[in-house]
Parts: sequence; structure tokens; C-alpha cells
Amino acid sequence: MNIILLDPNNTLADGLYGLTQRQQTHISKVIKANRGDVLRVGMLNGKIGEGIYEPPSEDRAGYIHSLNLISLPPKPLPMVLVMALPRPNMLKRTLQNITAMGVKDLYLIHSAKVEKSYWQSPVLQTESIQQCLLEGLEQAKDTVMPNWSLIPRFRPFVEDQLPAILEDKVGLLAHPYLAKPCPINIQQPCVLALGPEGGWNEFEVSKWHEAGMESVHLGDRILKVETVVPVLLSRLYPA
Amino acid sequence: MNIILLDPNNTLADGLYGLTQRQQTHISKVIKANRGDVLRVGMLNGKIGEGIYEPPSEDRAGYIHSLNLISLPPKPLPMVLVMALPRPNMLKRTLQNITAMGVKDLYLIHSAKVEKSYWQSPVLQTESIQQCLLEGLEQAKDTVMPNWSLIPRFRPFVEDQLPAILEDKVGLLAHPYLAKPCPINIQQPCVLALGPEGGWNEFEVSKWHEAGMESVHLGDRILKVETVVPVLLSRLYPA
Repeated sequence: MNIILLDPNNTLADGLYGLTQRQQTHISKVIKANRGDVLRVGMLNGKIGEGIYEPPSEDRAGYIHSLNLISLPPKPLPMVLVMALPRPNMLKRTLQNITAMGVKDLYLIHSAKVEKSYWQSPVLQTESIQQCLLEGLEQAKDTVMPNWSLIPRFRPFVEDQLPAILEDKVGLLAHPYLAKPCPINIQQPCVLALGPEGGWNEFEVSKWHEAGMESVHLGDRILKVETVVPVLLSRLYPA
Repeated sequence: MNIILLDPNNTLADGLYGLTQRQQTHISKVIKANRGDVLRVGMLNGKIGEGIYEPPSEDRAGYIHSLNLISLPPKPLPMVLVMALPRPNMLKRTLQNITAMGVKDLYLIHSAKVEKSYWQSPVLQTESIQQCLLEGLEQAKDTVMPNWSLIPRFRPFVEDQLPAILEDKVGLLAHPYLAKPCPINIQQPCVLALGPEGGWNEFEVSKWHEAGMESVHLGDRILKVETVVPVLLSRLYPA
């Protein structure tokens, strides 16, 4: 947790912001802050700066006051990420990492090679996803919550929703067959579609192409999902 | 395991190559190959191509024969990576991932903020490290084993070994304070030094600078080690 993210809905009184259990534990056990210490804080979806810490007492929880929020959060990646739903045990870390890197628009989509059971995972519940995204923001010192949607049906999304999403954006399908090299430093918005571990199937690829997405590859090396995502994002938007 | 890497030292007879237990298990349970099936194989430190599978029988183990090795492995990253020793539970995955990305020269070095206990981890034994590197090669369909050294003492390395290593290379210190942005697509060899989670200390930074390394940063976002490494490597050598 590299920043304490305050929720405007968690105002205890004018200028006094409550802390979640996680935050209180981090402040007490990791930062080991005392009364009056200045902490790095940010307002959810707002600015970043400092606030003063008031520890919990017998009859009330700890809080932050005297906020001085002056900096803008880091700039977002100008992209929409459409990602085949990862395995449940990869999902949390994946969501944290893409959020930390600055993805603000995310669709988690079904694909033939995504096990149907993944869609039943408790990690997909709203509070659980929000928590992963929050942890990504706290890691990266960002404040702006990504927007996200679950897309359990591939075809209606690609046929009906994707065209509007693709307007004014380059469409890139991470699919290393009959593909051109993934462009470097594209300096324009994109829609990036990442397949499941087994790849998109032929039907899915044809649908993506029909919608205007181009297949791109990352070279000869086959990388794990956890590596492919930062490599792709860093290649498209290195700075 | 995206390729079966054969060991020239594991020749059973002319043109017949033995399989390790791991390989046999993968071929039997994941690939589910039968006698005569053509598998993607590579020779350790050699070329890539195909070979024919002979399953185990009652009195002998399985093997590969009739090799046809025609392709070169993917090109390596033209860099030397000097990395503060990661936590034991991060080390395996880190070694696999940097190998999969094409790092061929690796130094694992001590730093003030590396717990001394990490140096006692069984993961640091030679066979264990070789195994991690091998798994990285198998992931990426590469054959060339990285060279690696353990450097338990920081100062002698930076003072005595580094100058020769740095010749004809750009020296980059991943250290986000008073740093310039990490260059993109450098198209020349480099030495990249990555610190521990808490960062290099002042003394260490001054030693790196004395030796000719320049501090570089990746922007405002603080990323986890597992993300920073692919981001950095991809930024320096995107293609």
C-alpha cells in the first residue's frame, strides 16, 4: 500500500476521513505512524497529497484530517483492454497489475477456451473485483478507479458493442498467427484484445477481424500471461 | 513446457536422446503423445526443430530420435542484468520470467535492504537455479542457457568487476530518485541494475554512479517487481 486512498463517502465530519480496517492495520503495523504524522493520501477519483493521522482511541476509530491534496494522479493509459477471463487464481493479480499500470477501461470476456466454471468464481463478485482494482491503485499511487464490465457472451459483444468502442481507436488483437509485429509507442488510443491461455479460436479470430481488429504478435518468445500483459502495455505505451 | 529441451549429455545412443522425468510426465499427461508422434524439440544451447517420440516400455525409458533441428533460437536481449537478490518466494518466478524474456547474463547481488537470510535459501543451490532457468527456456521456446553468478558482496563487484562489464555498454540504474526517464528502444547493449524492494541505499547509489551507471525511472507509477522487470526489459528492447 503506497498511498492511503480515502473515500469521499467515508467522511466522518467536515474534513475528517475514516479509514478501512486494511488501512488502519497498514498504518499501525507497517507505517507505524503516530498521532500527527503526515501520510501520503489520495482521494478516490481525485487528487493526491498529504493528510494528518489521528490514531484510534478507546471509543472511536482512527482517521485522517487536514488534507492537502495538490497533485494529479499519474496519467492513464489511453486504451480499452478486452481480456478473456483469466483463471480464478490469476485473476486477482492480473486485475491488480493492469490497474497499477494505468488501465481504466476493462472488459472481461468469455472465450471458447475459458472454462465455464471460471465465471462462477467468487473472485468475480463486485466487491471482490473492486478490491483488486483498489489494491492496484494503492500499489501505483493512483486514485482513479477503472471502469469494468463482465461479458459472459462473446458474440453479442464483438458484433454489437465493439464497433462503437473501436471508433477513433486502433484495434489490436494479441494473436500470434499470421500477425504483424505489435507496434511500438503507438501514441494513440487503442482497443487491445487478449485471449485465454489456449488462444482465441478460429471463429473468434474471424469475428475480431470482421470488427476491424488486427492480429499482432510479440516475436518468437512465448511468454506467460503475467509477463505478456506488462510487456504489451509497455510496448504500446512506454512513456 | 512449450518445447522439449534435449541435453547433448543425455545421449542414449547415436541420435537417441533420453528424457527427464518432468519431460516424460509432460509428454504422457499433457501432450499425450504416442509412438511416432512428432514433437517440438530443441538442443540445449543449440537449434530448434522436431523429433520423433518413442514411449517408454517395460524395460527402458522413453526417448526422442530422428531429430531435425533447423531453426535458430529467438534472439537474446543484448544486456547484462544485475539484480538485487529477490525474496526466496519471488526468486523462482523471477528467474523463469527473465529467462523467458531473453536475458542471458545475470548477476544476483547483495544489497543493504536484502535480508541476509535470503542467501541461505535452498532456491539458490545450483541445480535449483538451473532448473528455474530451464523452465524459462521451455516456456519461451528458447535453448540458450543464461550465464549467472551469485554476488553476495556488493562493493567488490561494483568496484572491481563492473567497469569491465560496462565497457561498450550503457549503464542504467533503476532508481527512481533524481532520475531521467528510462530510455525507449535503446538499440545497444546495456547493463541494467535492479534494486531490492526497498531500493538501493545512498552508499550503493553513489557506488553505481561512480562506476558510470545513470539513474532512470519509469514514471509516476510504483510497480511491483514482477511487473517492473517485464516493463523495463520491454521498454529498453521492445522488438
